[in-house]
Amino acid sequence: MRKGWASSGVDLHLEISATGGRRRGLEDALREAVRDGRLPRGTRLPSTRALAAELRMARGTVSAAYDQLVEEGYLTTRPGAATEVADVTPPAPPGVAGMARPSLPSSPGTAGVARPSPHSSASAPPDRPTSPPEAVPVHDLRPGLPDVSAFPVRAWLRATRHVFATAPSHVLGPCDPRGRIELRTALAGYLGRTRGVITTPDLIVVTTGFVQALNLLAAVLPGGPVAMEDPGHDFYRDVARRAGREVVPLPVDGLGARAETLTREVAAAVVTPAHQYPTGIPLHPRRRRALREWAAGSGRLVVEDDYDGEFRYDRQPVGALQGTAPEHVVYVGTASESLAPALRLAWMAVPPTLIGPVTEAKLHADAHTEVPGQLVLARMLETHDYDRHIRAARLRYRRRRDLLRARLLGPGRPLPGVTLAGVAAGLRALLLLPEGGPAEAEVVAAGERRGIALRGASPLWHDPPVSAGLLVGYAAPSERAYPYALDALAETLAELRGGAGRSSL
Amino acid sequence: MRKGWASSGVDLHLEISATGGRRRGLEDALREAVRDGRLPRGTRLPSTRALAAELRMARGTVSAAYDQLVEEGYLTTRPGAATEVADVTPPAPPGVAGMARPSLPSSPGTAGVARPSPHSSASAPPDRPTSPPEAVPVHDLRPGLPDVSAFPVRAWLRATRHVFATAPSHVLGPCDPRGRIELRTALAGYLGRTRGVITTPDLIVVTTGFVQALNLLAAVLPGGPVAMEDPGHDFYRDVARRAGREVVPLPVDGLGARAETLTREVAAAVVTPAHQYPTGIPLHPRRRRALREWAAGSGRLVVEDDYDGEFRYDRQPVGALQGTAPEHVVYVGTASESLAPALRLAWMAVPPTLIGPVTEAKLHADAHTEVPGQLVLARMLETHDYDRHIRAARLRYRRRRDLLRARLLGPGRPLPGVTLAGVAAGLRALLLLPEGGPAEAEVVAAGERRGIALRGASPLWHDPPVSAGLLVGYAAPSERAYPYALDALAETLAELRGGAGRSSL
Repeated sequence: MRKGWASSGVDLHLEISATGGRRRGLEDALREAVRDGRLPRGTRLPSTRALAAELRMARGTVSAAYDQLVEEGYLTTRPGAATEVADVTPPAPPGVAGMARPSLPSSPGTAGVARPSPHSSASAPPDRPTSPPEAVPVHDLRPGLPDVSAFPVRAWLRATRHVFATAPSHVLGPCDPRGRIELRTALAGYLGRTRGVITTPDLIVVTTGFVQALNLLAAVLPGGPVAMEDPGHDFYRDVARRAGREVVPLPVDGLGARAETLTREVAAAVVTPAHQYPTGIPLHPRRRRALREWAAGSGRLVVEDDYDGEFRYDRQPVGALQGTAPEHVVYVGTASESLAPALRLAWMAVPPTLIGPVTEAKLHADAHTEVPGQLVLARMLETHDYDRHIRAARLRYRRRRDLLRARLLGPGRPLPGVTLAGVAAGLRALLLLPEGGPAEAEVVAAGERRGIALRGASPLWHDPPVSAGLLVGYAAPSERAYPYALDALAETLAELRGGAGRSSL
Repeated sequence: MRKGWASSGVDLHLEISATGGRRRGLEDALREAVRDGRLPRGTRLPSTRALAAELRMARGTVSAAYDQLVEEGYLTTRPGAATEVADVTPPAPPGVAGMARPSLPSSPGTAGVARPSPHSSASAPPDRPTSPPEAVPVHDLRPGLPDVSAFPVRAWLRATRHVFATAPSHVLGPCDPRGRIELRTALAGYLGRTRGVITTPDLIVVTTGFVQALNLLAAVLPGGPVAMEDPGHDFYRDVARRAGREVVPLPVDGLGARAETLTREVAAAVVTPAHQYPTGIPLHPRRRRALREWAAGSGRLVVEDDYDGEFRYDRQPVGALQGTAPEHVVYVGTASESLAPALRLAWMAVPPTLIGPVTEAKLHADAHTEVPGQLVLARMLETHDYDRHIRAARLRYRRRRDLLRARLLGPGRPLPGVTLAGVAAGLRALLLLPEGGPAEAEVVAAGERRGIALRGASPLWHDPPVSAGLLVGYAAPSERAYPYALDALAETLAELRGGAGRSSL
């Protein structure tokens, strides 16, 4: 199907494939036109009404295609304005002088808004929450954030309107401590379909995040220490300790968590089987079996932190461990990496024996999770807007991962000997520094001088080494800023080339 | 100013007073026209554009007046439809046979939606959260809910659109554990203005409800028991105990909580000074002084639960205790009664010495409260949509309180000897049964047979009596259903007249 596009003032022919559906065909044709430059950035697209008339399509089909391409970053839109072609070509790297100014003011959009304190790790809130706002880095490559500039605002608002227009008012009244049935039902289907989780709506508890899930479990587990991966998420160790639990290390090697080291004294083991945090290793089948056998044999619990199970790039996602032992594993997933941490929405699939105590704990912790966000997320799951957002985000993040690898390990690499772990999935990579090269603190300090915020990896170990490397989060910058951020990182590493032993840190 | 109203097809003259502002004048004229029947229910109002042109007013003025009357219940609207005159005349009471059917199906609007478990008390979630859904009562006069059918949906959606259209995307990223600065700033102003609270944005912590506030405080208070009012909120006692605190009774008499009984061993006293829960007594000035002196002298803490400070009917609200001792009092307010409990939004104003520990506790409990709801509430405070909603709700609830009093204590009262306490404020009243009359459990059971859900008051006492009375929540039914609910309550009491001693419960 070949169509002129006179109405837009752009001389353009769209090749719309007849196979795969009209909407899919239109999306492909628009993507192609943007990629090969026939639709240059800044081009105003015709209204959905005009294009639908021109192509003899339903207006909803065109509108859905536009939405999809907005979420993928090809198009941009703002309320009340026309849809335009976004700037998708990575900008040429600027000179060092032009960008590495730690004293640059924060962007105009943030003027007058108090900046939150910096985050220290993945889902971890600031180390010093009450400290005064600090200077905002030009580039943030710390882990823990998705690209919130790609948050699906339109889909979220659409679902919000739908919820308030259709839900009976009693949804604003009392709520089951486990959460709204609409969301628990949608999640049971989604988790079964995408992660192989075996559960029912009755066994799901909606929480305000992994942190709260950990607190609820700490309150109901039998006595005994909690084993947590070493290296692993340091903030979660703090949470477990504050909840009154002793934390013991669960060592990680090249096959993942060494499950065979778990003893009967341990009450629960918190693991990241799909993509070990931070090494990125998927738990080896032998270790998965050992973990199950330990839990089943001693009546202990495995807590599966599936923090980024949706973002695997090079092969099919590893199915959830919970699907192989639903009686012994608590599965915890979250919208913090898939949508935004600010939503504070996460979910647990709980074994039948624990659902009563966990529900009681949730009731006494905060009654239930807020309802509007739950209903909006349920709606986005029902309409598959959530799936579409995930697919688009996965593409973007994989592209970023590829760029990171190429920039640091490819030809012209800034610091020989650097290795990257954990790049098969997720929103971050563990950058290991070469022996005899610069120390971790040196790299972080050098980055700071260039206006780039980096996170040292050593606090992830239970007994932190002096220097380990960096945990590089590649999701937080916007699409436009990312290539600049990578350049800043590469230049930071290049500056320290040969600087081994210079620092006595 | 006298204007015809030809454009609407309704032959109507509006007397718009020239004093007090044009919007106010229009609101008054419309209210009057609805009340005296000149605008019968179901009448479609002209569009804001048409009426503005006719009255030579700004369209925004007409629109604001419509919104206000929608919130007051005079007009109704739905997205995409014209504004209409609501049914504001109380329907004639139906016969007993027509209404008292416990087996009536739930209303059509709730079909297919799993019902939450029943609530047992004010902000208290269900006693048995995991029990299966039970039969839905025709009328719910249990405490703990505002009229969620009057939730300001339009203002909420308007603020939501504004927030997503204007906020920089980084608001979806990391957040201070205390909450968004926009909301803390708006609350500091609002609480100072309306409740006399002395605080700054830095000293405010946004929580997910009073329950969470209590948990955070329980985690940071020095050792020692927590004193809680007797009678008082039984669910909060459970929360404090689960958080590891011993709970000791703080007796209440005709002057409120007997502060002089507090010893130095007590770590904190949780009180409801504006409107004691459930007796409704405002704390006597002498007692307020004693409470302050106890806290100041022994370095102990007062927790002020200002659960319904906004709803006082017969005189100006009692100012917050916190305003007289900001160094020793934690003030806690909530949107649960003013908007809806499902939002899970509350706020604490914390003394400077405690802000660090409370912030740390919040960080480790759930990182921070969800951001979209915070920003929407901040916007509603900034635009005074929140104030307008409160004023309209206060009028509605006062009318209900008056109806309750007239129906139970006025001529033709169903059960002589019944008294009502706590009616000067709030969304509920303590109904005390006459000596020698029916027992509390008998009344609850008789109500159940008529399809009316009632809550016995005895669990509110630390050492529960066999029979005390009822805690009647008069906010939960919709405006339309309320008169029927009152009739059902009156008939329940009348049925038990002279039934004293019949039951050995």
